[in-house]
Amino acid sequence: MTAAARLLETLAQWGIEHVFCCPGTSEIPVLDALAARRGGPEFVLTTHEAISVSMADGYARASGRIGVAYLHTNVGVANGLAHLYAAQVARSSVAILAGIKGTATLPHRALTTSPRLLETAAPYVGHAWQNLRAEDLLEDVSRTLWHTTVIPEQPAILTIPQDHLAAEPGVAPPVRWGARQGPAAEAVRHASALLDAARRPVLVAGSDVARRGAETDLARLAERLGAPVFVESRRDLERWSFRTDHPLYAGLFEPRAPMLAEADLLVLAGMPTPLEFSAEVAALPSGVPILHLSEDAAEPGRRYVPAGAVVGDTVAALRGVAEGVRAPSRGEWPARVLKNSADRHARWAAEVPLDGEFSAAVAMRTLADVIGGERLLVLDAVTSTLPLLRFLQRTRADSLFATASGSLGWGMGAAAGVAMARRERVLAVVGDGVVQFGVPAFWTVARYRLPVTYLVVNNGKYQAVVAGMRKSGGERGEYPLTDISGVEIAALATAFGIKAVTVDGVAGLRAALAEDPGPEDGPRLIEVRVNDQLWQ
Amino acid sequence: MTAAARLLETLAQWGIEHVFCCPGTSEIPVLDALAARRGGPEFVLTTHEAISVSMADGYARASGRIGVAYLHTNVGVANGLAHLYAAQVARSSVAILAGIKGTATLPHRALTTSPRLLETAAPYVGHAWQNLRAEDLLEDVSRTLWHTTVIPEQPAILTIPQDHLAAEPGVAPPVRWGARQGPAAEAVRHASALLDAARRPVLVAGSDVARRGAETDLARLAERLGAPVFVESRRDLERWSFRTDHPLYAGLFEPRAPMLAEADLLVLAGMPTPLEFSAEVAALPSGVPILHLSEDAAEPGRRYVPAGAVVGDTVAALRGVAEGVRAPSRGEWPARVLKNSADRHARWAAEVPLDGEFSAAVAMRTLADVIGGERLLVLDAVTSTLPLLRFLQRTRADSLFATASGSLGWGMGAAAGVAMARRERVLAVVGDGVVQFGVPAFWTVARYRLPVTYLVVNNGKYQAVVAGMRKSGGERGEYPLTDISGVEIAALATAFGIKAVTVDGVAGLRAALAEDPGPEDGPRLIEVRVNDQLWQ
Repeated sequence: MTAAARLLETLAQWGIEHVFCCPGTSEIPVLDALAARRGGPEFVLTTHEAISVSMADGYARASGRIGVAYLHTNVGVANGLAHLYAAQVARSSVAILAGIKGTATLPHRALTTSPRLLETAAPYVGHAWQNLRAEDLLEDVSRTLWHTTVIPEQPAILTIPQDHLAAEPGVAPPVRWGARQGPAAEAVRHASALLDAARRPVLVAGSDVARRGAETDLARLAERLGAPVFVESRRDLERWSFRTDHPLYAGLFEPRAPMLAEADLLVLAGMPTPLEFSAEVAALPSGVPILHLSEDAAEPGRRYVPAGAVVGDTVAALRGVAEGVRAPSRGEWPARVLKNSADRHARWAAEVPLDGEFSAAVAMRTLADVIGGERLLVLDAVTSTLPLLRFLQRTRADSLFATASGSLGWGMGAAAGVAMARRERVLAVVGDGVVQFGVPAFWTVARYRLPVTYLVVNNGKYQAVVAGMRKSGGERGEYPLTDISGVEIAALATAFGIKAVTVDGVAGLRAALAEDPGPEDGPRLIEVRVNDQLWQ
Repeated sequence: MTAAARLLETLAQWGIEHVFCCPGTSEIPVLDALAARRGGPEFVLTTHEAISVSMADGYARASGRIGVAYLHTNVGVANGLAHLYAAQVARSSVAILAGIKGTATLPHRALTTSPRLLETAAPYVGHAWQNLRAEDLLEDVSRTLWHTTVIPEQPAILTIPQDHLAAEPGVAPPVRWGARQGPAAEAVRHASALLDAARRPVLVAGSDVARRGAETDLARLAERLGAPVFVESRRDLERWSFRTDHPLYAGLFEPRAPMLAEADLLVLAGMPTPLEFSAEVAALPSGVPILHLSEDAAEPGRRYVPAGAVVGDTVAALRGVAEGVRAPSRGEWPARVLKNSADRHARWAAEVPLDGEFSAAVAMRTLADVIGGERLLVLDAVTSTLPLLRFLQRTRADSLFATASGSLGWGMGAAAGVAMARRERVLAVVGDGVVQFGVPAFWTVARYRLPVTYLVVNNGKYQAVVAGMRKSGGERGEYPLTDISGVEIAALATAFGIKAVTVDGVAGLRAALAEDPGPEDGPRLIEVRVNDQLWQ
């Protein structure tokens, strides 16, 4: 058995059922081993490494397993890099294996060879290594896989010289998994005391809550405290972590919401320090003390000095803190926040009337109405995401995946990875700009008949840039370099063999969504032509 | 005037007429300045940074100017990285300007921000810098541009904090240009002496010859020596540097060609050390002494010890060496090499009969026949490139651009950049796999009505991987992960508004090429469906 064959066996031992790959000649020993092998893992063909990496990321997030992308040399690693950043921001367990030239060739001026390949990936991984000896290959692979599971999770990369794949491998070490750290008892006690002392606490549900299946634990803490719960802001959102039908659900976290200024404790529950867009746009309400629950010790304190910090496993932290509080009364506080939130939702609905112009917001409100709280969602729609999240219902745990990375195109491949992991239909809400960043995803979903419905909000614009220019210089006639119209998105999907329809208007969108098939029916695309305004 | 406005002025002073850009919000100050400005440079909108960089590269190569790509933050730089490698391998003067968040935000956890952004680009540039003070912005931009012109040329990158674009800039330094070094007189004398002593010399024309407009100088040297001239191998070819109708043209350099083993001096004229594919495939004939003419002092000696090396400007080196030789007679040597070469070409033609199966090779032989020696070409067709180059005629200087990087998709954007630089119709010969790596190029060529004809050799396969598997394990029924069929390539182009036809067979291809319009008619695509064999 060659090392390539043993490598496949090692991946199977780790429970890896899918590997995402767009191969080149340096992967030939692996392909030879695949042709000879019975049993998993299945190698899933992609036609661009950006799809390999975003699929592996979506797969890892949705399955709780490791997402493995097998890339081709320095150019493949480069092509996958932007979405590797997305995986890093999401703390996704993505392992990159990359084939490189053989060790007799690497020192020379060689095709697709950079003597500094690992440098390019290093900023976006927690572990980067080149296999040095064939006999250590299986151990290096195992160590790379393991590193992606060490908490806080980060991607990892291993480069594999081609000749080592054909050589005699050493022994594969046993499968091991990153151990969870519980929080320190003293930190938990301090947190409970802060909560007891707070009269107007507010919770923010971060993505770690969904990641660890801790939605119920968070709800129990909220109920015990009588504290309203916001879901982390659309800029930070990677997973949705609180039921929208819970009596304490207070809406999407928006730092300038007036009630937040009145809070006397803001609990960031299972999230990093919120991302900053610019110095002018605050990511947190100013002056409100913070209690930060995080699995990453580097997050609390990164940007501000918290009043309390609990570092460790999210489930243990939520349970520990809940046990320690004495359930004081909050008086009118939660009712006031929830009333304000209900008013805000009503105002938003009034501002986006379903019989008005067919803007992106109207399309998103319609979508939220139709799909209800249970559909599996992947969001990468840039400006349309905010209206969708404002109107969205979520009643099913860990059923929404998004990116806080700003790496355009992520949703195209991630949706395919989520569909492969969950074996049910995924609705991927993406912008027309996003489609152009991830066209090759169409090939893979078509070939594997993956149950992905791409819902493309097509405004023909880089709307985020237009909005930014409006802010910087007011309304004007011309917004250079923002008009990306001219693509027949439905025809584009059809060229890959994907059934596609184009709709506009509320009724058309409702009808198209009503016809959405089951998981057995392969991919589909709904192009939603909206006007060139986000809100009106 | 803001720094952004002065930045545009500075680019204009450097003679830069086009900047390739897919903007995000961090570029808004530049877009604001563009909206207010009259005059160049023109910003050309792309819908993916891979296209921005490959267009800038093609533009730089074809124009002799600097190719500027303006990228968006860390994700934009990541998306452009694979083709930045292509630009580096080609010694292309590509300058990357990248917008990043403002300096008040950068230290925090910020959207699309990596504290180690420049690390990812560093392996592929000669100069990487982040603008530190607004008052140095124009000088930093100028220095970055200048660095791309320093010989041996390499790309360069400057990251620009958003707030510095709105601030008061300092003074722009004058335009400066990389100075050429002439070779040392002693090295030239030694080279001439080696040539005088050689009885069976062979010249290999490298891409630097076309880069410096030195085709005539190389021809004069060859004539003076009576030495046959090969054009560098398809693995190394970036530009075609010798007329195929010259009496001393001996064909494409293939290291295992039998005549090369008989040579007693191999002159690498204006090229780096040949790229190695693997240790089993020699890049140079073994045992033949080498005289290496290079503009990069690090190339001669990188892989072997040359008998002589002339480092410096290609024109000066060719002229100097030619002046020093005493034009000795080579007896039968050149005639024997040329006879062998003519026989080889005849054999190739016999092996690829135009009335046989419509393989990629038959399509490429047909193409070579039809287009003659003058058409402007961009090649990124992977396995089809070798048969095309074997049959190709070239009678026009510096009219062919290819990549030795292996960065798939390069040709899609590069062709657009070449068309913009030369303002005439470019024929881009690409594979179907390449198309999937560069789909967004269709958007830009359609929007700007660029005169590019994409000729897509569609075999539905990763043929290079299939060929490699045949070598490694013989003919078999299954070649996993190589079948990428299922895309209607013509329909894909049509979705972007590009006129497209699908043809198969020699007559169909001839007819489609005969209808190819002039430069005023915008882009076009010819999908050539070939069988699944490269040669038969």
